Order: sequence, then C-alpha cells, then structure tokens
Amino acid sequence: MENKQISDRVIERLPKYYRYLKDLCNSQIQRVSSKTISKALNITASQVRQDLSHFGGFGQTGIGYDTEYLKNVMQEILGINKPHVAIVIGGGRIGQALISYKGFADENVFVKAVFDIETEHLKSVTGVEVYNVSSLEEYLSKNHVDIAIISVQKEFAEKLAKRVVDAGVKSIWNFAPIDLNFDGGVVCENINMSESLMRLIYKAHQS
Amino acid sequence: MENKQISDRVIERLPKYYRYLKDLCNSQIQRVSSKTISKALNITASQVRQDLSHFGGFGQTGIGYDTEYLKNVMQEILGINKPHVAIVIGGGRIGQALISYKGFADENVFVKAVFDIETEHLKSVTGVEVYNVSSLEEYLSKNHVDIAIISVQKEFAEKLAKRVVDAGVKSIWNFAPIDLNFDGGVVCENINMSESLMRLIYKAHQS
Repeated sequence: MENKQISDRVIERLPKYYRYLKDLCNSQIQRVSSKTISKALNITASQVRQDLSHFGGFGQTGIGYDTEYLKNVMQEILGINKPHVAIVIGGGRIGQALISYKGFADENVFVKAVFDIETEHLKSVTGVEVYNVSSLEEYLSKNHVDIAIISVQKEFAEKLAKRVVDAGVKSIWNFAPIDLNFDGGVVCENINMSESLMRLIYKAHQS
Repeated sequence: MENKQISDRVIERLPKYYRYLKDLCNSQIQRVSSKTISKALNITASQVRQDLSHFGGFGQTGIGYDTEYLKNVMQEILGINKPHVAIVIGGGRIGQALISYKGFADENVFVKAVFDIETEHLKSVTGVEVYNVSSLEEYLSKNHVDIAIISVQKEFAEKLAKRVVDAGVKSIWNFAPIDLNFDGGVVCENINMSESLMRLIYKAHQS
C-alpha cells in the first residue's frame, strides 16, 4: 500500500473511520455502505469512497464494505496492531488524568512510568512506576520508550521534550500549550486545549 | 471587519497568533516582523502577512507589527475580551483536571459548576459548585451558561450534550471520544485524544 501518497487530510480522517468501523464490528455489523459511513461521520459519501480506496476498501454496490476486513487493514496502517510503550512527563492533574485514561488500551499503548520534579504526590498513583525527572536519561538508556507524553507547564515543555528526543524517543504527544516540532524523524502531536477553547468562543461569537 | 469571510484555515491559526502576541507583550516587545512570527509559528512569512491583513494588521517595512495593538484586536475578534461562564459535565479524572486547568483564566472563562451522577468524590474539589446531573435542567433554567464542557464516557456524551443544548447552551467543548455536531447556532469543539494518539502512532510508523 502506498501510504506515502496519502494526504494529511486523509490521515486526519483515518482514526475516525477506524473508530466507527470498530464500533460496527463490536455491534456485529458485518457490512456498511459509504452512505451510512458518510452520515455517521459527517463526510460526503464520495469522499468516503475515495478515502477508503486508499486502504484497499472497495465497497460493492448493494453490499457495501466488509467492516471487519477494513477495520483490520486500518489497524495495521495506523500501526496500533502492535503495542507501544509510553511515559508521562509531568504528574500534575492532566498527567494523572492521562495515566488513568482508558483509551490507551484501545490503541495498544501502555504507560509504564511517570516523571516529575516532585514525586511525593504520585505515590498513590497505581499501575505506573514513579521517578524524579532527574533520572529521565538513565531510565531511557535502560528502557525502550516509543512515546513520551508531555504534560508540564509551557515553559518547561520544550526543554523536557528535547531531553527525551536526545535520548532517542521518536514520538512526542504534547499537552503543554505550545506547539512542539522536531526534525530528524521525530513526530509530534500537539493537543492544544487553549487554542481549541479560543476557537470555540470565536465560533460562538460568529454564529 | 468582515469576519464572515475569514476561512477555517485562518481561524485555526488565529489562536496561535494571539498566544504568540500575548507572549511578546508580556516580554515588553512592542514590534515584531512577519519573519519573526513566521519562524516562531512555523508558518510562511507571506501567509503571516496575508492572515494578519484580515485583522487590520499592516506591518510597516523595517518596523513590523504593533504587538499590543494586534493582540488587542485579536482578543476582541476571538471574543475572549468578555468573560464566559462554563460548567463541566462529568467529574471523572479528565473533568477534575479541567476544573483546575489554569488556561481558563487566560481565556476569560470561569467554571462555575460540575455535574456528575455521583457527587461524593467531588466534595473536595474547590472553587466550583457540585451538582447531581439530575438537576442539570433546573440549574440551566436559573443560571446563564455560555459553555458546557463534556467529559463523560462516549456512550453518554451525545445525550448529555443534547440536554444542555435543549436547555439553551450554545457552545459545547467536548472531550468524549465521539464527534458532536449540532445545528441551530450551536457550536462545538471536539478534543479527541484517541484520534490524536492514533495519528501520532501512524506518523511514527511512516517516518
């Protein structure tokens, strides 16, 4: 499959398709039409057909798409069929909420450790190892980590992300209100709550 | 200002400009060039000039843009110069993290109350009123609420959002892993962490 040719816009929609197909599979629905997907995801049916053709999904007239097949293909394309190890940097409220975030298991992601400048308040957090951030490099030299989740204050985010990148981590999931970008094969997704809130207020004032 | 003509792509960037301009103002920097903005925000300089011209920002050669002026204009366009009242529906870990989220004050948003099906675990949460979700409609009939923040499980999100919309709330900020969309002048921003995580893993596998 020529993934390299898939545009950013299609990639944006890819998780939406996957999530919807998974729901259908969980509900034992074996076939779905582009029209039904279109309605559920608020995407035009012709766009759905075009997008899914990238992933080897070819719906048959009157029969539709095979949900299980398409779900499995997408899982593989997304790379979530294999497990990924994550660490959380910043054990504040958002960091703690992330540690307990149930969606990780769905995406085959496992949070192994949390790092903070103070660790006392994290002693009651279960299921993860707790470390002082001073031992970050030592930990990363001994443990393979796929994803570093950054949930520290804005002013520390860039420096801490750089430390994990320098130590070999290739994926950054950033919750600090600053856009992080790295070169050299390091990928980054920024969840910027503050920007989302501003867009919401803006749209409300325009409507 | 003809805001209606501003494209979604510009709106996406608007909070980034605002945030950057605010940082500059806080650092007492009075002038900034499109080149500097371009570098900081990873947007081409010509795009910066085009975007800012929508907001009455006209940089002068060799002098650049007036940061304070442009920041104030953007604050007004975004609508965050006026206070907004919010409620949180769902007092789980994400809901609690949101209640204590410091960014709200920056955007002039004030969380007044949290609603859940059980309220016992929220007694220690300070600064907000705590209610059983059964009293949602009664609360909304007596209190003006601009923004409802949905942080419940996927299966309850749509129904609860519909309840607040039916009760007159016009802005939904949704953290449940399902895209919510409403007609009739109701605006919605979906923060979909699960999709972001999938995109991150996908990009890592492609790089």
